[in-house]
Amino acid sequence: MKTYALGIDYGTQSGRAVLADTATGEIVATAVQPYAHGVMDERLPDGETRLGHDWALQHPSDYLEVLETTVPAALREAGVRPEQVIGLAVDFTACTMLPTDRAGTPLCLKPEFARNPHAYVKLWKHHAAQPEANRLNEIAVARGEKFLARYGGKISSEWLIPKIMQILDEAPEVYAAADRLIEATDWITWQLTGRETRNSCTAGYKALWSKREGYPADEFFAALDPRLARLVDEKLSRDIRPLGEKAGELTPDRARRMGLLPGTAVGIANVDAHAGVPGVGITEPGQMLMIMGTSTCHMVLGTEERIVPGMCGVVEDGIMPGFFGYEAGQSCVGDHFEWLVERAVPPAYHDDARARGLDIHQWLTEKAAELPVGGSGLLALDWWNGNRSVLVDADLTGVLVGATLRTKPEELYRALIEATAFGTNMIIETFVRHGVPVRELFACGGIAEKNALLMQIYADVTNREIRVSASPQTVALGAAMFGAVAAGAARGGYDRIADAARRMSRVRPEPYRPRPAAAAVYAKLYAEYRALHDYFGRGANEVMKRLKALKAEAGGHA
Amino acid sequence: MKTYALGIDYGTQSGRAVLADTATGEIVATAVQPYAHGVMDERLPDGETRLGHDWALQHPSDYLEVLETTVPAALREAGVRPEQVIGLAVDFTACTMLPTDRAGTPLCLKPEFARNPHAYVKLWKHHAAQPEANRLNEIAVARGEKFLARYGGKISSEWLIPKIMQILDEAPEVYAAADRLIEATDWITWQLTGRETRNSCTAGYKALWSKREGYPADEFFAALDPRLARLVDEKLSRDIRPLGEKAGELTPDRARRMGLLPGTAVGIANVDAHAGVPGVGITEPGQMLMIMGTSTCHMVLGTEERIVPGMCGVVEDGIMPGFFGYEAGQSCVGDHFEWLVERAVPPAYHDDARARGLDIHQWLTEKAAELPVGGSGLLALDWWNGNRSVLVDADLTGVLVGATLRTKPEELYRALIEATAFGTNMIIETFVRHGVPVRELFACGGIAEKNALLMQIYADVTNREIRVSASPQTVALGAAMFGAVAAGAARGGYDRIADAARRMSRVRPEPYRPRPAAAAVYAKLYAEYRALHDYFGRGANEVMKRLKALKAEAGGHA
Repeated sequence: MKTYALGIDYGTQSGRAVLADTATGEIVATAVQPYAHGVMDERLPDGETRLGHDWALQHPSDYLEVLETTVPAALREAGVRPEQVIGLAVDFTACTMLPTDRAGTPLCLKPEFARNPHAYVKLWKHHAAQPEANRLNEIAVARGEKFLARYGGKISSEWLIPKIMQILDEAPEVYAAADRLIEATDWITWQLTGRETRNSCTAGYKALWSKREGYPADEFFAALDPRLARLVDEKLSRDIRPLGEKAGELTPDRARRMGLLPGTAVGIANVDAHAGVPGVGITEPGQMLMIMGTSTCHMVLGTEERIVPGMCGVVEDGIMPGFFGYEAGQSCVGDHFEWLVERAVPPAYHDDARARGLDIHQWLTEKAAELPVGGSGLLALDWWNGNRSVLVDADLTGVLVGATLRTKPEELYRALIEATAFGTNMIIETFVRHGVPVRELFACGGIAEKNALLMQIYADVTNREIRVSASPQTVALGAAMFGAVAAGAARGGYDRIADAARRMSRVRPEPYRPRPAAAAVYAKLYAEYRALHDYFGRGANEVMKRLKALKAEAGGHA
Repeated sequence: MKTYALGIDYGTQSGRAVLADTATGEIVATAVQPYAHGVMDERLPDGETRLGHDWALQHPSDYLEVLETTVPAALREAGVRPEQVIGLAVDFTACTMLPTDRAGTPLCLKPEFARNPHAYVKLWKHHAAQPEANRLNEIAVARGEKFLARYGGKISSEWLIPKIMQILDEAPEVYAAADRLIEATDWITWQLTGRETRNSCTAGYKALWSKREGYPADEFFAALDPRLARLVDEKLSRDIRPLGEKAGELTPDRARRMGLLPGTAVGIANVDAHAGVPGVGITEPGQMLMIMGTSTCHMVLGTEERIVPGMCGVVEDGIMPGFFGYEAGQSCVGDHFEWLVERAVPPAYHDDARARGLDIHQWLTEKAAELPVGGSGLLALDWWNGNRSVLVDADLTGVLVGATLRTKPEELYRALIEATAFGTNMIIETFVRHGVPVRELFACGGIAEKNALLMQIYADVTNREIRVSASPQTVALGAAMFGAVAAGAARGGYDRIADAARRMSRVRPEPYRPRPAAAAVYAKLYAEYRALHDYFGRGANEVMKRLKALKAEAGGHA
């Protein structure tokens, strides 16, 4: 009997179920369900209660609906019977968190809290906790907290503790009523198994936990706010479970609603990007995954804990059990090219693209591909949305050098592609310099799959081979692998995630290989990039900060 | 009897006659004649002889045709009788030069030279003499020639001596046959009066002459090429006449063809930009004229010779007799905005402009005008076409700092306007620091007349009042003033150009005045501009040169 595993992938706008053959990794069915409430950033579902600036909420019922619609649809589509599905696991955006009661019922589902914004799910891109994040960072620095070093020296407003602090600041009644404050990925896994578990990935990357040090001391939380002194023991958990473990088994009720068998194995919850690592077959240190979309997330495994300045985090068991998982990021990749296309490409180019039946990105890429390496005379710093790694500075801004009266749109387009490649190389170089080897690259995500010019430039700039995922559902496939591991080898799955990754991952047969001549020119351009990166980014000239301050004084948009 | 003076203005594409009332400066008629041969940059008039890269020639017959068509047309249009026209003078592009025989006949009109490109007029923007300019500069530096300091340390390939050197290098037979090598402005004046004169403006700004030092020594010319040892005495002239003098009187033949009276006074020849200075009424030191078009030319009078680093030139009697005339320039102003509009403004903006019946520049200006000062967070260096003053470096390139994903086209447009204003302020600051006061600004040219936002930004950035010419023909009006001075007060004209300027110039009644709050913010932005200007322009980081070198190696366009 063929066996299958399910990966259930919760994105920003929709959830999807992906059914994969546990022997080969072949995806036999995919079903998608958009969230009925989408991203709530203006009003609550009552249509009346307004949300503040930078808010982004979701509705937990939407997540349950995904389970009940997509899983039966996927089984139906593939003609797979429930007994063939040996396991499943979830991956989710993060930090996406919610307050619940002791039984796991989201507070927003209780009538008394239905009109309280803080009772809902705070989505990863809820950015209204910036004052709290600032306070946390100040206090952590003042106290000399060692955990800061693991996160590049700065905690983001997107992470768990600032979001909790905002609830306490603005809705202490919600904080008081919340028996549990929990990542959505752990909450949905709880709903599947009937018992609460907490995963090492979000605990490590989003909640300041480490396997060796645990959470920051209660004194630290008390310094943030005396009411937070017992936060970890009262509303979080010190029982953090490594990825690859089994979280439990499907409850009869949940199994019935999903069209699966009760007792089906469920893996410990995961985060979307991190699930992509086994999804492309990475099983050992030295291999870095780039998940490339509007922004890029970089993940690499290590055997030791190294403090690499300016990275998003290092977490033991955070990506694959038994390894330290390192995460870095670029905050502006696809967004970069989209900005250019929307704001700075003239009508003739749009007309030409249309006449050829091409998307404007395809047309600019075609024209950019005809340019010789170094032929534009342009160099850009990829900071249109700040710098996430290695400078960890949201107030940095974009730079273009080398423009002339002959500079053309395709040259600007290519310069922005190159800038993001240089940014990635800066991340790789920083990892390597601090003892985390990066020998080979893997890539997944829309841009990696579609844009051969971009991938070739990345190979040339990084001077490394890049393998691209052959699956359009790399992340969900990775989650399915964790489902197969939760089931175990004896039931047709695997005992270790590395085994699953080796058998079930799918990459294209031909990697992008660096071309020596191009790599030599790019090495020169990268040296120029690095010089400007350091000049503008490391304090020699803080012109960007001053321009932003003048803009804020002028009342310009942020 | 009302009296009139004619200004005959030779531009790049056409010549025009402007007839002005000598009492009031009112322009009573304008007539334009495009050059039949235009700018020849591909082939000679034979349609066969090809020109090299960067060549730009004109045909001297076109200049004569201007006299014979535009002057009668202007008189006819205004109903002015020939005896009412008391004087005329010419202004011209420069250095625009040609070889003639002893009688003033252009060599290109002789059958034996008709197919020799070097026998034609070399237009100011003929750039093919760069190797000769490089050689000249090297030799001048090696010999420690003092004249270099008067020209910002570098002689342009556009100027007279490099153009002559190119003739000698590539067509020694033309050089040998050329009894005279002469500026077109002096040549056309010669055709009017029947006798050769040489003006102090082109001699000073384009031919290395100074009133006190004369030409460089014959040894210098011999060092350039032994055949040039006697260049000045044989083919140029040491008899240099100050602006404001009378060159002579119209010959009977020329008068007949132009519909004027023989004996009409003709002023010493002038250059277009320089004629603009009295055209706006500048009569004393401390007043700077900006002639604003695709590029900007800055002119200011001084009472002493000061060496101001990086300026285009200082010439005694070069603008107004009795003063030192200082010239500086920005190589990319209108071209800057044109580049943005052509290469980097999206379709929606063009559509919106069309829907409002506005030119795209008008529409972007309207939107840019709504932005608060400092509100874009952007800062640019205006080097899309190199830097003419004060760095004198054609290999510098454009920079943009501060871009974000929210940066809009009107913000880019405004940032480029501001960049050119900062560039002008850098020129002013450099003059002032080296002892040439600049108290008040005047402006003429299309951009100055049309773009109120730009002019207000210039007033705020320079923290100076700016008066804008009320005449659309400022330069030709200035030439007409010199015509009135050639006639003299006794005949209804003036004895001194300052008197003519005071009576005949026309500026708008309301100047642009700096707004203190805006000026305060711009002072901060200018400090940032200066820091980046010096960082990229004075050797701290020669990234622009290296990018250009890589581009040249890659075979990218120059």
